Amino acid sequence: MNPSKLKSSWEALVAHKSFILACHVQPDGDCLGAALALARTLRSLGKDATVISQDPVPDHYRFLPESDTIVHTSDRRYFEVGVVVDCDQPSRTGTAAELINSAKITARIDHHLTKENFGDIQIYEPNISSTSELIVELFDAVGIEIDQATATMLMTGIVFDTGGFRYSNATSRTFEIASRFAAMGVSPSEIVRSVFESRPLRAAKLLGRALSSMQETQDGKIVWAELSNRDYIDLDADDSCTEGIVNTVAAIKGPRVVMLLREIEPGIVRASLRSRDGFDVNKVAAAFGGGGHAAASGCTIEDTLQQARNKLISEVRRWMES
Amino acid sequence: MNPSKLKSSWEALVAHKSFILACHVQPDGDCLGAALALARTLRSLGKDATVISQDPVPDHYRFLPESDTIVHTSDRRYFEVGVVVDCDQPSRTGTAAELINSAKITARIDHHLTKENFGDIQIYEPNISSTSELIVELFDAVGIEIDQATATMLMTGIVFDTGGFRYSNATSRTFEIASRFAAMGVSPSEIVRSVFESRPLRAAKLLGRALSSMQETQDGKIVWAELSNRDYIDLDADDSCTEGIVNTVAAIKGPRVVMLLREIEPGIVRASLRSRDGFDVNKVAAAFGGGGHAAASGCTIEDTLQQARNKLISEVRRWMES
Repeated sequence: MNPSKLKSSWEALVAHKSFILACHVQPDGDCLGAALALARTLRSLGKDATVISQDPVPDHYRFLPESDTIVHTSDRRYFEVGVVVDCDQPSRTGTAAELINSAKITARIDHHLTKENFGDIQIYEPNISSTSELIVELFDAVGIEIDQATATMLMTGIVFDTGGFRYSNATSRTFEIASRFAAMGVSPSEIVRSVFESRPLRAAKLLGRALSSMQETQDGKIVWAELSNRDYIDLDADDSCTEGIVNTVAAIKGPRVVMLLREIEPGIVRASLRSRDGFDVNKVAAAFGGGGHAAASGCTIEDTLQQARNKLISEVRRWMES
Repeated sequence: MNPSKLKSSWEALVAHKSFILACHVQPDGDCLGAALALARTLRSLGKDATVISQDPVPDHYRFLPESDTIVHTSDRRYFEVGVVVDCDQPSRTGTAAELINSAKITARIDHHLTKENFGDIQIYEPNISSTSELIVELFDAVGIEIDQATATMLMTGIVFDTGGFRYSNATSRTFEIASRFAAMGVSPSEIVRSVFESRPLRAAKLLGRALSSMQETQDGKIVWAELSNRDYIDLDADDSCTEGIVNTVAAIKGPRVVMLLREIEPGIVRASLRSRDGFDVNKVAAAFGGGGHAAASGCTIEDTLQQARNKLISEVRRWMES
């Protein structure tokens, strides 16, 4: 979005007085950072702004300023403007959807590439690292000064969505923003530590089991790791412990496709697929009713770990040979 | 170092014609990137510059432009200027020390905090992320334009020494440099991928064993992981597979001290210690003849894994209680 379009969208937004900003279910650093930054800024302009999240704020995001102001339900039924943050439609916000849908005006602020066209006001740009970075562009376009607390919120979103500045979506502009916020006293390394380096011990051990289980096909083109339902039970681990495992598994040399298979319940296997060299794992996931992007995709297969693995390998092979 | 001091040091350096630039033993991304950038720039000024490294260039640094020009031995015995790069004295360069010591003029370009005072010319600044970042400051101070290949070399050093922009040594200025180099077409994410995310499968499995072995003291203040000599043999892994393991082990929530114990030979245990909240693990390492920094230190103990662990825990406790 160009600055003038950002400006007109912002003006349309702040013509109103009360706002409900809804996070997507299982909110992540970008969603939380963006929603909090937006709410803080609206409040500084004398607006009435509430952030709602169906799901609790994960412990490792409690350091975010004003994270304790986030509500999970609301007795109040009416807000002038309902905003979906870091997602493309109200249904992604779970139980908050009703509040969005009953608002006079709806808005979407997001960077996810989708075909959805939700929102009377749309602040939307898919070619940007994160919703938080989009908000920096928005505030810069309209001349809103970003204070240290807001910068901490937005830096958290950028850190999360760029994998701590490691993904290719971290552009020259992303680093420029990081430089500017660091000069204001925001510490990227402390945010990285909270977001990525504060695993519970059981999550570290679960990651250990995944890595230890790694195997490769004879030609080395496909590598996979498996976690059985037994592994989760042994370690008293839940799904929140899975965050980031597939990326660590995929940080190896050689294969075109890396898969993490998790038996989330006996007979139900969730697969996360990662690819390199342009191989499209989205096609593989789609064959099992899943989806995602060409380089990162996922699906669920009702079968044993072993059978699910064999099915996935066959499907990957089919596309590799086609 | 201020710009004028950088300028006078550079002028003293380029008053000469032939240079041998020596890497420290087991060269890392910063050492290689800095030495290659310096050699390329000296050559562009019509100088004769050779980079020497006793040890081979690790596979994951082969992407560096001109990395194939690095020599490991030299028949030529005389260079006007001998430079130690990313270390504080010739002995750190192994077999290259002789060439440095027989040069007419010696120089050191480095960011490591030491008491050593080596070099007729010293380009030295401990308050900077990396020798590579110091070279950016040097080139900026003297007005040397950094081309894309040189930027790739220097970005690699910065990426390595900041853990992919994740450590607290990545400052506002570091991000500014990353932004500038990214705008020139250098890809931080590709460099991160080569440097940190290209493990051999056996290294991933070794990391898995380390994480799976993690234990904590009852109060949760000390966490450790262990790798036995058997683990290395089982996985056909060597010491190069150990890189980064301690940092992944330490990326957990709670403890003040994290230890990785590696039985490198039966009865010889190498310990890497990491701390938080200002606890000084250097004192612990020193008790066993080792050393390092307050937050990251190491030592070698001749004993069984179990005994070494018990000794280390006792020593940590002693300092925690003092």
